[in-house]
Amino acid sequence: MRATPVSFTEDQMASVKFGADGLVPAIVQDATDGCVLMLGYMDSEALRRTLDTGRSWFWSRSRQEYWCKGETSGDRQWVRSVSYDCDGDALLLVVDQDGRGACHTGERTCFYRSFGPDAGSS
Amino acid sequence: MRATPVSFTEDQMASVKFGADGLVPAIVQDATDGCVLMLGYMDSEALRRTLDTGRSWFWSRSRQEYWCKGETSGDRQWVRSVSYDCDGDALLLVVDQDGRGACHTGERTCFYRSFGPDAGSS
Repeated sequence: MRATPVSFTEDQMASVKFGADGLVPAIVQDATDGCVLMLGYMDSEALRRTLDTGRSWFWSRSRQEYWCKGETSGDRQWVRSVSYDCDGDALLLVVDQDGRGACHTGERTCFYRSFGPDAGSS
Repeated sequence: MRATPVSFTEDQMASVKFGADGLVPAIVQDATDGCVLMLGYMDSEALRRTLDTGRSWFWSRSRQEYWCKGETSGDRQWVRSVSYDCDGDALLLVVDQDGRGACHTGERTCFYRSFGPDAGSS
């Protein structure tokens, strides 16, 4: 797949309201079928890197560092669009997902467990 | 539409890791076509209300109160499934959306603005 940078205006960038911790949640959705793959967090720099490179960049709250999805695993995300919500405090990325999927467990989506009588609890 | 409570085990509930502020982000996706409609926040009580009632309940960070989506606007959400992610710190609701859509602006989805040369910036 090929990286396609997303152009943006500073007005658009200014519409994003980062929280007290400097972060906004970013939902990642598969372009092929709409499957919600994962949720990560971006600060201003991660968002700019995402738009500039056409790859998904996040801020890891646990490791306190930037990470580019799939850089080590190979499960890369090629960004097709980036939207922000009415309040400007959440992002939605639509991506082409490489490899097995988005989850480090090997599942396609991180949301592979559901509440319910027959659902796994582990 | 009809409310369908979602049964759950305490093991499943214990898999959800609420943040320091007691909240987790909850993505809401339309059951009909996979459209990502909105992102809200739930605390433990909002999640239990959601599962027990089959309607989407959130904690409003700005108003500091619980709200049941659509209770005033009529744009109700009928919950069809609730999933949690690999880290247990994000939720995904799949819903049947009533009315015009999820956004208080009248748009169907809160994510109606995208980065790009032709996208709106207001």
